[in-house]
Amino acid sequence: MSIPFLKYFVPQDRLFFPLFDKAATNLLEGGNAISELVKSTTEEERQKWFREIERIEHIGDEITHEIFIELGKNFITPFDREDIHRLVSSIDDVLDYIHGSSKRIELYKVHDMNHDIIKLAELIHTSTRELRSAVLEMKNMKKMRDITDALVRINSIENHADDIFDHAVAQLFDHEKDAVHIIKMKEILSALETATDKCEDAANVIESIIVKMA
Amino acid sequence: MSIPFLKYFVPQDRLFFPLFDKAATNLLEGGNAISELVKSTTEEERQKWFREIERIEHIGDEITHEIFIELGKNFITPFDREDIHRLVSSIDDVLDYIHGSSKRIELYKVHDMNHDIIKLAELIHTSTRELRSAVLEMKNMKKMRDITDALVRINSIENHADDIFDHAVAQLFDHEKDAVHIIKMKEILSALETATDKCEDAANVIESIIVKMA
Amino acid sequence: MSIPFLKYFVPQDRLFFPLFDKAATNLLEGGNAISELVKSTTEEERQKWFREIERIEHIGDEITHEIFIELGKNFITPFDREDIHRLVSSIDDVLDYIHGSSKRIELYKVHDMNHDIIKLAELIHTSTRELRSAVLEMKNMKKMRDITDALVRINSIENHADDIFDHAVAQLFDHEKDAVHIIKMKEILSALETATDKCEDAANVIESIIVKMA
Repeated sequence: MSIPFLKYFVPQDRLFFPLFDKAATNLLEGGNAISELVKSTTEEERQKWFREIERIEHIGDEITHEIFIELGKNFITPFDREDIHRLVSSIDDVLDYIHGSSKRIELYKVHDMNHDIIKLAELIHTSTRELRSAVLEMKNMKKMRDITDALVRINSIENHADDIFDHAVAQLFDHEKDAVHIIKMKEILSALETATDKCEDAANVIESIIVKMA
Repeated sequence: MSIPFLKYFVPQDRLFFPLFDKAATNLLEGGNAISELVKSTTEEERQKWFREIERIEHIGDEITHEIFIELGKNFITPFDREDIHRLVSSIDDVLDYIHGSSKRIELYKVHDMNHDIIKLAELIHTSTRELRSAVLEMKNMKKMRDITDALVRINSIENHADDIFDHAVAQLFDHEKDAVHIIKMKEILSALETATDKCEDAANVIESIIVKMA
Repeated sequence: MSIPFLKYFVPQDRLFFPLFDKAATNLLEGGNAISELVKSTTEEERQKWFREIERIEHIGDEITHEIFIELGKNFITPFDREDIHRLVSSIDDVLDYIHGSSKRIELYKVHDMNHDIIKLAELIHTSTRELRSAVLEMKNMKKMRDITDALVRINSIENHADDIFDHAVAQLFDHEKDAVHIIKMKEILSALETATDKCEDAANVIESIIVKMA
């Protein structure tokens, strides 16, 4: 995306951007937690990360709520009210799927975290880091190029995650005989892959906000 | 969400709000029908509710169509045309998943409606009742607090449904040996759970309309 | 509230509409390719169509990228920038699911393309043809009726695809004993059915653009 001629104008907002930063930083913690969870080797460690992801998801809900409250109280917003709503909801969605992946791993009692699961969780971690960079740069639209580069990387991470998911499921079909185990693994892989989809959705929201401002 | 200082202005619309009421009331009938279906104990009763849900879904399509026709004919709308479009589509989506759940129960010939399925169907019923209240109050924005309370309850119903779904699937994995039966039950549980997701989506549309008007 | 009294005005755009045509025509090629793939009787033929769908998906990505670049460079757009974004993304989504269906058929090594799979692929083909007609007519809003007729047909194709999917899965449950094969077939049928859902989503985007312009 290239930068248009007209100057865009971002008001010096001191209320919403700190809240967006908080939401994006909390999301990154979720990305880290899921990638630590799947690398855990003891039940104790796993339990620690299950609880940590619960905690992060809860904080995410509180931040979302705080932003919606501020939206209701303030007339001046750094960009369209409905776009703030979409941005915050999309960050919340990523966290929901991180939490959903964690819950499935816990509830289905699956302990053999294979290479594909670990790789997908690492991609989520990277994607949440890119999302946080993009959100942080939104308050300072001068580095438009940095934002769009992050968005491009989030898209390519999603493509990569898609491939890993497809091959992981094909592998299961080829090598796993227990249909119930296939279903369980597919559910976990699918929740992880969807988390990267939701990162891409959040990136698309950011892109559409930038397009409007351009 | 608190009410901002500026007065919002809702024109005394006598065309669209009655149609929204009709759509929301029809949806509530769908919510009632699915919860009656899963509690049915005879094939005759089940057949009655299958047909009833078909009928309600068909009426829903007609109401949706009627609203779109009116959108095309009228210049003055109580809120943004595209938001009316989103609201009506989101109500239609809930009904689609109620209908989808019913079709799966019928087609897969599953008769052992367990506690989780009954609970999920009851949550759909409650959520459609809350949605109807919120939609009915939209024409009279004075009771803003009543609307937002209903939306909060729809969100918490969705969280509850999510938990029930997760535990129901985990239970299947623990106790059911027949993989094909697991797949069938998972499909039915998933369609029911998605109906509550779609209620939440509709609640989010209402929330975003309120945010804009604030 | 929007009270337009002016007739809608579509600038004689010579930049975006040719790009939309390119995207919609490429999508139609994808619709053709998936319907040819599932009718292929030799591995050689199948391989040819797998590669062809990869190629079409890649071209789709390039066209999408090109349109986003132009959005960033141009101030005058034939309709709202965010609607262009949504239209192009929704066309891209259809192609993603066509590609996803093709990848699953390849990766899961499923060769018995039954009647339902062939029928679903043909519905995708028809739906992409209708989408292309609707997109082509958007530059010339005089034939509004032609556009809305195409959108209605896309909706009814999606309903039809839904029924085929439901019955195909019920058939699998009734007649297929191998749970792993059921899972594979369900995944392929589901990806194909979702492609018709995504056509409907694209139709809804077009409908909402028309609603705004009306």
